[in-house]
Amino acid sequence: MNEVLDLGYARVDIGREARQGLPEVVYGPGKTVAQIAGIVTGLLEHNSGPVLATRVAPDTAAAVLERVDAGSYDEEARLLLWRPAAPAGFHVVVAAAGTSDRPVAAEATAVASAVGLATTVVHDVGVAGLDRVLRVRELLRSADAVIVVAGMEGALASVVGGLVRAPVVAVPVSTGYGASLEGVTALLAMHASCAAGVTVVNIDSGFSAAMAVHRIAVSRPTADHGGSA
Amino acid sequence: MNEVLDLGYARVDIGREARQGLPEVVYGPGKTVAQIAGIVTGLLEHNSGPVLATRVAPDTAAAVLERVDAGSYDEEARLLLWRPAAPAGFHVVVAAAGTSDRPVAAEATAVASAVGLATTVVHDVGVAGLDRVLRVRELLRSADAVIVVAGMEGALASVVGGLVRAPVVAVPVSTGYGASLEGVTALLAMHASCAAGVTVVNIDSGFSAAMAVHRIAVSRPTADHGGSA
Amino acid sequence: MNEVLDLGYARVDIGREARQGLPEVVYGPGKTVAQIAGIVTGLLEHNSGPVLATRVAPDTAAAVLERVDAGSYDEEARLLLWRPAAPAGFHVVVAAAGTSDRPVAAEATAVASAVGLATTVVHDVGVAGLDRVLRVRELLRSADAVIVVAGMEGALASVVGGLVRAPVVAVPVSTGYGASLEGVTALLAMHASCAAGVTVVNIDSGFSAAMAVHRIAVSRPTADHGGSA
Amino acid sequence: MNEVLDLGYARVDIGREARQGLPEVVYGPGKTVAQIAGIVTGLLEHNSGPVLATRVAPDTAAAVLERVDAGSYDEEARLLLWRPAAPAGFHVVVAAAGTSDRPVAAEATAVASAVGLATTVVHDVGVAGLDRVLRVRELLRSADAVIVVAGMEGALASVVGGLVRAPVVAVPVSTGYGASLEGVTALLAMHASCAAGVTVVNIDSGFSAAMAVHRIAVSRPTADHGGSA
Amino acid sequence: MNEVLDLGYARVDIGREARQGLPEVVYGPGKTVAQIAGIVTGLLEHNSGPVLATRVAPDTAAAVLERVDAGSYDEEARLLLWRPAAPAGFHVVVAAAGTSDRPVAAEATAVASAVGLATTVVHDVGVAGLDRVLRVRELLRSADAVIVVAGMEGALASVVGGLVRAPVVAVPVSTGYGASLEGVTALLAMHASCAAGVTVVNIDSGFSAAMAVHRIAVSRPTADHGGSA
Amino acid sequence: MNEVLDLGYARVDIGREARQGLPEVVYGPGKTVAQIAGIVTGLLEHNSGPVLATRVAPDTAAAVLERVDAGSYDEEARLLLWRPAAPAGFHVVVAAAGTSDRPVAAEATAVASAVGLATTVVHDVGVAGLDRVLRVRELLRSADAVIVVAGMEGALASVVGGLVRAPVVAVPVSTGYGASLEGVTALLAMHASCAAGVTVVNIDSGFSAAMAVHRIAVSRPTADHGGSA
Amino acid sequence: MNEVLDLGYARVDIGREARQGLPEVVYGPGKTVAQIAGIVTGLLEHNSGPVLATRVAPDTAAAVLERVDAGSYDEEARLLLWRPAAPAGFHVVVAAAGTSDRPVAAEATAVASAVGLATTVVHDVGVAGLDRVLRVRELLRSADAVIVVAGMEGALASVVGGLVRAPVVAVPVSTGYGASLEGVTALLAMHASCAAGVTVVNIDSGFSAAMAVHRIAVSRPTADHGGSA
Amino acid sequence: MNEVLDLGYARVDIGREARQGLPEVVYGPGKTVAQIAGIVTGLLEHNSGPVLATRVAPDTAAAVLERVDAGSYDEEARLLLWRPAAPAGFHVVVAAAGTSDRPVAAEATAVASAVGLATTVVHDVGVAGLDRVLRVRELLRSADAVIVVAGMEGALASVVGGLVRAPVVAVPVSTGYGASLEGVTALLAMHASCAAGVTVVNIDSGFSAAMAVHRIAVSRPTADHGGSA
Repeated sequence: MNEVLDLGYARVDIGREARQGLPEVVYGPGKTVAQIAGIVTGLLEHNSGPVLATRVAPDTAAAVLERVDAGSYDEEARLLLWRPAAPAGFHVVVAAAGTSDRPVAAEATAVASAVGLATTVVHDVGVAGLDRVLRVRELLRSADAVIVVAGMEGALASVVGGLVRAPVVAVPVSTGYGASLEGVTALLAMHASCAAGVTVVNIDSGFSAAMAVHRIAVSRPTADHGGSA
Repeated sequence: MNEVLDLGYARVDIGREARQGLPEVVYGPGKTVAQIAGIVTGLLEHNSGPVLATRVAPDTAAAVLERVDAGSYDEEARLLLWRPAAPAGFHVVVAAAGTSDRPVAAEATAVASAVGLATTVVHDVGVAGLDRVLRVRELLRSADAVIVVAGMEGALASVVGGLVRAPVVAVPVSTGYGASLEGVTALLAMHASCAAGVTVVNIDSGFSAAMAVHRIAVSRPTADHGGSA
Repeated sequence: MNEVLDLGYARVDIGREARQGLPEVVYGPGKTVAQIAGIVTGLLEHNSGPVLATRVAPDTAAAVLERVDAGSYDEEARLLLWRPAAPAGFHVVVAAAGTSDRPVAAEATAVASAVGLATTVVHDVGVAGLDRVLRVRELLRSADAVIVVAGMEGALASVVGGLVRAPVVAVPVSTGYGASLEGVTALLAMHASCAAGVTVVNIDSGFSAAMAVHRIAVSRPTADHGGSA
Repeated sequence: MNEVLDLGYARVDIGREARQGLPEVVYGPGKTVAQIAGIVTGLLEHNSGPVLATRVAPDTAAAVLERVDAGSYDEEARLLLWRPAAPAGFHVVVAAAGTSDRPVAAEATAVASAVGLATTVVHDVGVAGLDRVLRVRELLRSADAVIVVAGMEGALASVVGGLVRAPVVAVPVSTGYGASLEGVTALLAMHASCAAGVTVVNIDSGFSAAMAVHRIAVSRPTADHGGSA
Repeated sequence: MNEVLDLGYARVDIGREARQGLPEVVYGPGKTVAQIAGIVTGLLEHNSGPVLATRVAPDTAAAVLERVDAGSYDEEARLLLWRPAAPAGFHVVVAAAGTSDRPVAAEATAVASAVGLATTVVHDVGVAGLDRVLRVRELLRSADAVIVVAGMEGALASVVGGLVRAPVVAVPVSTGYGASLEGVTALLAMHASCAAGVTVVNIDSGFSAAMAVHRIAVSRPTADHGGSA
Repeated sequence: MNEVLDLGYARVDIGREARQGLPEVVYGPGKTVAQIAGIVTGLLEHNSGPVLATRVAPDTAAAVLERVDAGSYDEEARLLLWRPAAPAGFHVVVAAAGTSDRPVAAEATAVASAVGLATTVVHDVGVAGLDRVLRVRELLRSADAVIVVAGMEGALASVVGGLVRAPVVAVPVSTGYGASLEGVTALLAMHASCAAGVTVVNIDSGFSAAMAVHRIAVSRPTADHGGSA
Repeated sequence: MNEVLDLGYARVDIGREARQGLPEVVYGPGKTVAQIAGIVTGLLEHNSGPVLATRVAPDTAAAVLERVDAGSYDEEARLLLWRPAAPAGFHVVVAAAGTSDRPVAAEATAVASAVGLATTVVHDVGVAGLDRVLRVRELLRSADAVIVVAGMEGALASVVGGLVRAPVVAVPVSTGYGASLEGVTALLAMHASCAAGVTVVNIDSGFSAAMAVHRIAVSRPTADHGGSA
Repeated sequence: MNEVLDLGYARVDIGREARQGLPEVVYGPGKTVAQIAGIVTGLLEHNSGPVLATRVAPDTAAAVLERVDAGSYDEEARLLLWRPAAPAGFHVVVAAAGTSDRPVAAEATAVASAVGLATTVVHDVGVAGLDRVLRVRELLRSADAVIVVAGMEGALASVVGGLVRAPVVAVPVSTGYGASLEGVTALLAMHASCAAGVTVVNIDSGFSAAMAVHRIAVSRPTADHGGSA
């Protein structure tokens, strides 16, 4: 099946689940309650996996949930969710540098859980308090993948990238002021990271980080890989 | 073992192999023949996996190979290599948009091969000739991970990200002129991509993309993951 | 006739219709209801073609329509219009990448229609769902010109530019967040496009794109042109 | 016919002529003499229209011409050319603001001629000497399309855009110093132009401007278009 | 006299009038009604020339005028004024490109008048309607100095700079959208201007332009200067 | 007389002297010896004032002087000059902040002298050695206009702007490294200056500063101006 | 003691006092009244030095003070404070360039006092009124360290850096408009400063400047240091 | 004594030693051998402290040393030096993140030594190998001040800032490629650092960092300071 569902106000890609393993995700901003509800209903009918709407404000969320049954809302993550996947064996740790990184970490965690990943979150592991990082070192090393959420200078990505051998996906956060340039500094710094093989997603996009890890989780398993100890 | 080898001109992280599954990689620019040869020798002695030196010019490479036995040099990739890993079952496809993206694609491919990944390269799959993209669609879909190498507007990352369910690591390339801003435009565009879960590494860093995929290849296999069809 | 109409608060270029084929278009922001009404009235009196006021908020529009008869308002396009031109044979297709590109696409479409072009709009043809692009390929190829409206990475301009031989005018859109840089990323990416001969107008300016196509439509026809198959 | 010619070092899009009315154009930088000669030979064999290689240095050009018969080289435009199209009725005027804009104007003119457009060039029409602009006003108004080539503040695009009703394609030029920011200032200024419907191509890309006009020239003729006087 | 008046919340430079020919000007934003009134009162007492407070909102202005007698307020210019200088023989023409440049032109005009310059304003002389520029050519040429106020691409500065021999002070304006970058594009473009000897002041600073012309007006007259016809 | 002299490789604006009081100035970069010589010869024949060619390298200058009699060359200023104007009464002081600002100061001084201004240069008056500034305070105050040449943070413009009542034209210089951003920092800082009425020209353009002062010198003298002490 | 206090919503670094000499400082924005109160209570219990919460709005501050005894609030500095340190012998002078720099200067002063530094503030010492700077020269020279607070062009840092031999910490301020670029211009200009050894902290961060001086105050005293007179 | 020594090509600030405790330092780039030798000779004659010339190439240095006796040259630091100060008790540790940061670290170390500070350098303490940082933790904590030299993402400044209570001066380095933006990313990231009280100097300026620490070393000692444990 590889079809488009035309709702007039949107052409929904209901073939994406077959192509990519997950239904299309609804991006909330700029859509009305009726539009979100209509697209979600279409996805629930034509697809079988989890259905998500991201960045939805509380009022809008409540109104959508009145129209479409059996959903739930995570306010910190601003995520609407129907038919979450059962948690599978892939474990992702979400590490957030500071208090102001919490909403982005919440989105990453909620989306990752919704698509079937096992998640653990650790907060306040900013590199200026190195002991707080070292205290969670074993947890980080046990992860199948790590999502690093950090604003300001984004240094946590380099530090974590050097501690673990698993995939590290870094999310720059738009908090901070002045030289933080609304997350652009963290984005650039994470790219310039001295830790090899750290990858980066868009500013504030906990969603993208979770989807990147989902891609990793579904990539073909390989029992024995050369080059690693 | 978690030690530093102090050579005077460098403190080599010989514990990295134990920590992260691969020996430290030598970044060539700014180092003399003697320094590269010394660090490589130290890594060969204290570690057991593949030893790489990146971005090495041909003259330097030849001189290093005279001093350190059993190495090889890939001129297009500008990579010096000792003790390559045997190819394992993880298959990465490197897709390059245009002719000028070839050197970066070569680095990604050579590094990926060196650390034990099976690699296939496809060139000239720029999105302005969509049929060329579609022609390799099945190859892309068969990959365990895809590295997209693209300068100019970087659109290939979005297109490939929408075609496959595997991890996609995008490498912006500094080719082009004017509005390309030496790769910054491609980097930003890849982050703004409409395809969910595409990750990005630094401009021109085929090396980083290969290392990111290596992290994915060694992440814990999982036989059965919820949320994917 | 090549005159200026001095209204005190504005010097209206009533000679533009003779010079350029269309009356001056009123840019709404920063003008009062009385000013818009006064300029429109002057243009209706001294010119004979369509009179447009762009980017007019609904409240302002309603108040202007009370003062100047026989106009209409397109709320999505935020366009006030008097004396629309009859549709002529030139056919422009407006292709929008995502839902958030709709207002800009609406402005392009409404302005193009107002000045006498035949228009067709297609939505949600983002390149991450390549099948949605391919599905409208024949429509795009049948157009006399294509306006591509896309935010984020702006990749649709390159893809469409490679599919059709007609003129392609790309409009970057200021939607998205983080690395989108309020449309600057899309603007730069469209300029760096690998598709030859794609042109670009200012961010969010559906109006400029429509006017660019109008210039093309009125350029001298040529029955037989060398170099094309 | 919609095929790719695989030369090992390049996959040539020999189907582009059928799709878009012109063979693929070879971008010279980064390619060897042998590669340019090979791609050109392939295009000459499999396509029937004009074959161009842009941005080719004189030495390289001479060596290529020794290997591939019947070509010519325009040094100022740095263009290699085989099988130029016969000039058709579409007339494009290339207007350059200053002496340092000449090479870009030369590329625009040579490429436009090669693909079958009739061209006229006017130089030194910078807006600081308004009389020089006014002197060519009639020439500009007689054109089917105008290409404006201007560095520094790029003001000529606005002035010409206000003088003619035909399509205007603006090329920002990277000359100047300081606040010119290597053409970025002109590019931005041309987009911010107060003249409606002016379109812009990448910095220094006389080639893109010519291709944009070629798209206009081959767009469907329309004998009678509403909305214009 | 070269003293500072310390009001606690401000240290007023009451010696500036002796040093520079005009009392210190009060910059309104961020100051309370009481603070503006206090500083103005101090300046009126200790200096003898015109006293100005710029960028004052209407409500604040009304409250200040209740506390300090004999002042007046220009709402469009947002200028509070006491003891305006009598107009002297120096004539400055303020030329504004578009309607949205009016507030900045108003500030330039009001400040220039307040410090004793004779002023004439002309509006809507954007370069896309070149005839409107040419129509005021003689007026511009008769001026002792010209202030050019223009947003978007700022081209008017180059055009005027080429038309007159008098000093030209250009004010970039933060109107426009997208590529206008809130006036930065106009600022850069005015600096890159092809007209020699045009100078530029900060974005939106009609005040600075007027003060620059005031400096010119008070510079030593010279009856016969070589090098000019 | 308002004519253009067409030399094939250039259209010389020989009417500029009548319009603006000075012949067109030849910008050297990108022009051949023959072109510079030709344009200069044309200007000498058709105009009567000083003829200048700026930014000419020593070798080029020597070759031009062999072809065109009676010229001179200032190597530090890189200025070729014929028929300098006799010094008139207008006195400009050029104040340079540091040693690396000397070439730009030299250009400003040489051009100003050539067009008939009386000039004095003072070097090494950087604000970090405030006594050096204060030592030249009386000289600065005696000037009819001051040109401030400063790289790095450009603070000298603010300091001088506060010391004198005459016109101050600031030239940002591209020296320095890192945060100097090749003069952009100084340009922005000079615009943000806290001294009212300071104007700015393009980075490194001693020429533009001199021409700006020339405009001031030729502006209409005024014996008695209100508002100044 | 080197512990973390886990409050659920925050992991407080209560070991910082032992490590760095001061308890962790609470950054107010984004935290609720309950969170600030909880963290402050934890710090008061587990640490013995001064406890600060920065950038707290008046309403929030009042509510926190109701929950946590014995604190005080400085509204201009927006600082909540418990257990201020007794003033020690180290004297810091805070010099602010203009009125709009006051809030940042207030934060620097209040934080410096809270951590035990003796402070003096001087306002309105902008470099355009050099006499105001010179008047406080002796005060500046008597300081153990100087904090310079300046927006716009930030020139005060260079001037003060050249006047004193003590450490100078510069704080760029985001006031101003246009070319001030929200403090980025001042930040860059301060880095490009011609005064050697001036250091810079983040835009608007009076807090960081105070903490930098605190580090200096607690660094090891040295009775007799070579190289200084 | 507060004098200027006028050498014609430079006005040397020989009063700086009395004002600021160190003679003026000669910045090498752009100066001839004769100029450097002349200024150095003047400083040696009129001042009594150490005389330094920075950023001097080896050839130039050798030629200067032939003209001015008793100097020495540090090639890695590119520093010429006469009359170094005797080391005093103030101990600064210079910590460099990577091999490519060595030249900047060398300049910081050589200048600090020259002005009388005791210095220790540690290399290769990049945060991706956290153990290498932890291994030097005690050394860092024993320092009176720390200079952190780091390119790429600059994360070392945050980590060190969190480890020590002494002053930390961060030097961003222009190494790296792509997103490093020639040191601008590191500069911004260091300002956005989550570690309180870290200060920053200009990109690549080991010299400025050393001078900043010199200011700290000479600031008034204070035996007993409140607020620190």
